[in-house]
Amino acid sequence: MKKILLLSTGGTIAAVHGADGLVPALQAEDLIAMVPELAGICEVECRSILNLDSTNMHPEDWKFIATSIMDELGAYDGIVVSHGTDTMAFTSSMLSFMLTNIDKSVVLTGSQVPLVEPGSDGRRNILDAFSVAATGRPGVFVVFNGKIIRGCRAVKVHSARLDAFSSVNQSEAGRVEGSNVVFRQPAELPVSPRHLDIRMDERVFLLKLVPGIDASIIDFIREKGYKGLVIEGFGAGGVPNSRQDLLDAIRRSVDAGVAVCITTQCLYDGCDIGIYDVGIAAGKAGAVSTFDMTPEAVVTKLMWVLGHSHDPAEVQRMMLEDYCGEIDPGYRTRLSALVREISDGDRA
Amino acid sequence: MKKILLLSTGGTIAAVHGADGLVPALQAEDLIAMVPELAGICEVECRSILNLDSTNMHPEDWKFIATSIMDELGAYDGIVVSHGTDTMAFTSSMLSFMLTNIDKSVVLTGSQVPLVEPGSDGRRNILDAFSVAATGRPGVFVVFNGKIIRGCRAVKVHSARLDAFSSVNQSEAGRVEGSNVVFRQPAELPVSPRHLDIRMDERVFLLKLVPGIDASIIDFIREKGYKGLVIEGFGAGGVPNSRQDLLDAIRRSVDAGVAVCITTQCLYDGCDIGIYDVGIAAGKAGAVSTFDMTPEAVVTKLMWVLGHSHDPAEVQRMMLEDYCGEIDPGYRTRLSALVREISDGDRA
Repeated sequence: MKKILLLSTGGTIAAVHGADGLVPALQAEDLIAMVPELAGICEVECRSILNLDSTNMHPEDWKFIATSIMDELGAYDGIVVSHGTDTMAFTSSMLSFMLTNIDKSVVLTGSQVPLVEPGSDGRRNILDAFSVAATGRPGVFVVFNGKIIRGCRAVKVHSARLDAFSSVNQSEAGRVEGSNVVFRQPAELPVSPRHLDIRMDERVFLLKLVPGIDASIIDFIREKGYKGLVIEGFGAGGVPNSRQDLLDAIRRSVDAGVAVCITTQCLYDGCDIGIYDVGIAAGKAGAVSTFDMTPEAVVTKLMWVLGHSHDPAEVQRMMLEDYCGEIDPGYRTRLSALVREISDGDRA
Repeated sequence: MKKILLLSTGGTIAAVHGADGLVPALQAEDLIAMVPELAGICEVECRSILNLDSTNMHPEDWKFIATSIMDELGAYDGIVVSHGTDTMAFTSSMLSFMLTNIDKSVVLTGSQVPLVEPGSDGRRNILDAFSVAATGRPGVFVVFNGKIIRGCRAVKVHSARLDAFSSVNQSEAGRVEGSNVVFRQPAELPVSPRHLDIRMDERVFLLKLVPGIDASIIDFIREKGYKGLVIEGFGAGGVPNSRQDLLDAIRRSVDAGVAVCITTQCLYDGCDIGIYDVGIAAGKAGAVSTFDMTPEAVVTKLMWVLGHSHDPAEVQRMMLEDYCGEIDPGYRTRLSALVREISDGDRA
């Protein structure tokens, strides 16, 4: 029988009603005790490593979680991490970069309703997560509401519904159907020994554009010492260019050594700043397109990349390299081709 | 036969390939000429009022579009506005507030593929938009890929696919099926004469949180003279409270007269800062929950509300009042009840 470790970090799944609303309180052994059916799936051990509402998860915690996983992985067949849903997609993305060439399953899960409440989704999610971990499929995954999602592709799209996560710009890795784990993608095997790489520079700012945005914020971010700026542009990654102020501020930032990346505020289909005038101008100002990566993957990847280099060319090269399935090299055949293909599909 | 006016503002639907990528170029009469089937639906007149990639749409342009619509509405049975998709949801939201007690249809549409390209969705969207406008159903709508979406509920969720828009936290107003317009919601009739109210204060900043965010940005926004701050929190609207710096900065902003509103970065289900410790703390610091409103509706509504009052109590009252279907008064029965209801539904 496989031996799986649960590392608990808090979250709604561990929450109880406190004086100031829901707060995480259950320890790892409490969670396990409430899902006795786990004994039929695998041998279970557990450790409580954090007890946070994941809204309070900090980049330093990602390092700690990654290190805790790597410390234990040799002694187990897989690891489940229970985690709040609010920032799970950020954590699962960052773990995907930090745990390189992972050769076993690391599965994040949690719940929308506290495990102590009747009708909680926590029991099912824990069972599903252990079932996936026991397969040994290499990689970091989010398992939630029956979906198996690559860690770097998860986005929380529902703040309340049990089907909280979506696999963005990539089909789901698989599903848990009853007690069966069904993968829909081939396994990706590690090419070298697993390796912990927690170097990162968290000085990355995310700027979601709204019409009329004032360019001074971009100067502030540079002057404040941020080393990376991720701009959530409009549509395919548009940045206003009828006024030159935003482009000038981007250029000043790039000249000062800030890595400026463009993503989109549209949930699906990604961005390509090579199609429209309003994207091309941002590219000419020195911004880098992030194609089909999720904003969560772009932000965490840029933090991780900046932990390895501050050289602009190297940062750009690394941002466009695929480390864990977070970016599809084929996507770069331009969004316009995608539009046509999808448009044909819609008509068919 | 009904008489419908097209006001063109640019966008992909009007785009042609220029030296620097796609740029809007077609005038209103060009659009009409390319969809001769319109003659079977209504009598058409047209005017080109702007020619912008909607990434370049500025809050001042919303005033101009709203004024243009109100100037013409008396002489027509309805108005169609062709518009770029990138910021259409912001424009449709703001028009929903500015055009109060509208008694005819104002329909925004556009396309993902330029009308001049084979397989463009522009032809269908224009035909559908005119069909909806000809019904006379009062209100501001986005009509796209067969969907009829209330203007204040539209969000662009796909950057490339033809099904670009979603009706967020409210069912679609209806569908265009072939040449039939099918409404799925009862009409809401105006309660007083239509009235143009373009007062607004565009000094509103949107801040999307990422883990580890530094509180200094909130002080910068206040010191820069912004009068409104919309925070896209985690999950149900969580703002980190384990460090006090963000909450302290929110409190300083509120004390200085900045209206601070909380929304969620989850696309669906909205926010309620009354459930979790990490939401309640933000509420105690003076932030206002925006429930089931979209971020686009929150940002434009706050600009519009701040054009009417800077008194904190009045701003809060107006933000929570439903003007055009943008907020469901019943939503305030708390997200936790919704969770339970949905959870029961999921199990059923």
